[in-house]
Amino acid sequence: MQTAKPFVVCFSGLDPTGGAGIQADIETLHSLGCHALPIVSSLTVQTTRNVLETRPSDPGLVRRQFDALIDSELDIAAIKLGLIDSPHVMRCISEIIRLCPTIPVVADPVLTAGGGFEFGGDSLVQLYRELILPYCRVLTPNIPELKKLSPQTGSEYEALQALCATGCEYILLTGAHRDSEQVTNRLYSSISPAIDHQWQWPRLAGEYHGSGCTLASAMAAGLAAGMSYTTAAERAQQFTWQALKNALKTGNGQYLPDRRNHL
Amino acid sequence: MQTAKPFVVCFSGLDPTGGAGIQADIETLHSLGCHALPIVSSLTVQTTRNVLETRPSDPGLVRRQFDALIDSELDIAAIKLGLIDSPHVMRCISEIIRLCPTIPVVADPVLTAGGGFEFGGDSLVQLYRELILPYCRVLTPNIPELKKLSPQTGSEYEALQALCATGCEYILLTGAHRDSEQVTNRLYSSISPAIDHQWQWPRLAGEYHGSGCTLASAMAAGLAAGMSYTTAAERAQQFTWQALKNALKTGNGQYLPDRRNHL
Repeated sequence: MQTAKPFVVCFSGLDPTGGAGIQADIETLHSLGCHALPIVSSLTVQTTRNVLETRPSDPGLVRRQFDALIDSELDIAAIKLGLIDSPHVMRCISEIIRLCPTIPVVADPVLTAGGGFEFGGDSLVQLYRELILPYCRVLTPNIPELKKLSPQTGSEYEALQALCATGCEYILLTGAHRDSEQVTNRLYSSISPAIDHQWQWPRLAGEYHGSGCTLASAMAAGLAAGMSYTTAAERAQQFTWQALKNALKTGNGQYLPDRRNHL
Repeated sequence: MQTAKPFVVCFSGLDPTGGAGIQADIETLHSLGCHALPIVSSLTVQTTRNVLETRPSDPGLVRRQFDALIDSELDIAAIKLGLIDSPHVMRCISEIIRLCPTIPVVADPVLTAGGGFEFGGDSLVQLYRELILPYCRVLTPNIPELKKLSPQTGSEYEALQALCATGCEYILLTGAHRDSEQVTNRLYSSISPAIDHQWQWPRLAGEYHGSGCTLASAMAAGLAAGMSYTTAAERAQQFTWQALKNALKTGNGQYLPDRRNHL
């Protein structure tokens, strides 16, 4: 019998290929000693190559699911946000995270699927800036997501600064979309103490389904366990790199990460 | 890089406490070396004590989710069925499993939640007998579920015989609902070669959220890996007993199984 384990509420899409979305959260948190509390923000139809269709959840149901967890007296140590592709669900989740200002929120801004499917237009991106970013402890964008969330800025550094100015405290930027031999990831914060830390990882061949979800969940697992931001970010990258290195080749699509704990 | 892993499609409810439903499937399959392909049959609102509300999925969406998996050329080794609380989704799932007669189907007949919530009335039970049982390789009822599915029969043995007569090949009956010091589980089949095997397990104190889901998923994992029915049933029981023995005590409800591989 165990009496304590960090609980992490996950608001994510459901991906039936099991590569991304709520399964990425559940497997990652399970492997890193946490217990996921899954709330589906959107049901999706997808192959291992692309998303074909999404069906956002009823925001009233999402709220009642969260309230039932509170009623169960589960001690929530972190909240992880993934796909939110409806303004109604986004408003509902924004209300929930504003109710819990002491719980760290790790948000993966899922705006476009690896295969190209667009989850929402400019108005949803604008809403994300208003309703989600100010209440995030950590945002985990890739380069295209950083550009979409901060389109007015010139350099990457200015874009990071602009995002932090919205109220989001830390940004863990992943550099896999750059054309370089090494992948450079960066943890940035302008709050005191300011931080600008970089890591380099050998680039892995192939395309992977759910790498961003895995990284954000692993980051949430670290914060839920009480790690510092830098330590949690470093372990999350190690965990994700191993999950990709050991990924499963599928029939005709992107590889599926193996989220057993290889650390 | 891995090139092969057994894929198991799971049609189950989504339980935000993470004790039962699709999370039970994902964690169990992950720990036992399989990859889950999750399709949510119904979103639920629940505490760790009981189910409060369910929202069955759109059967058209369920079908398109399954078709996208086929389109991804994922080699499905088993199918696991959990909560199906709408006649429309039941018809859809019945059509799918009839399309795949060579893939073993393990069905957990979720009719009542541990806390008492009824998922469907007599008409849904009757539909389950017609649309699901004839296409099951293994059914994993507990004693109350066996009685509901086979109400006309006298002894337990007659009830098992009656279920097998519907076309379901094996029944793994769990005995936790009996009032005895040891829990006796039973694997029964009337097909050739007939089998009637029993196991006894020390009863664990407390109530658990998701034990049935864990057992059925572990059974599906064994068949997906090519084990015999008896070996798969024995490992599934060992895995489940360990998950319950190491369960997590929660605020004010049933314990949450720990589905790391303790074997």
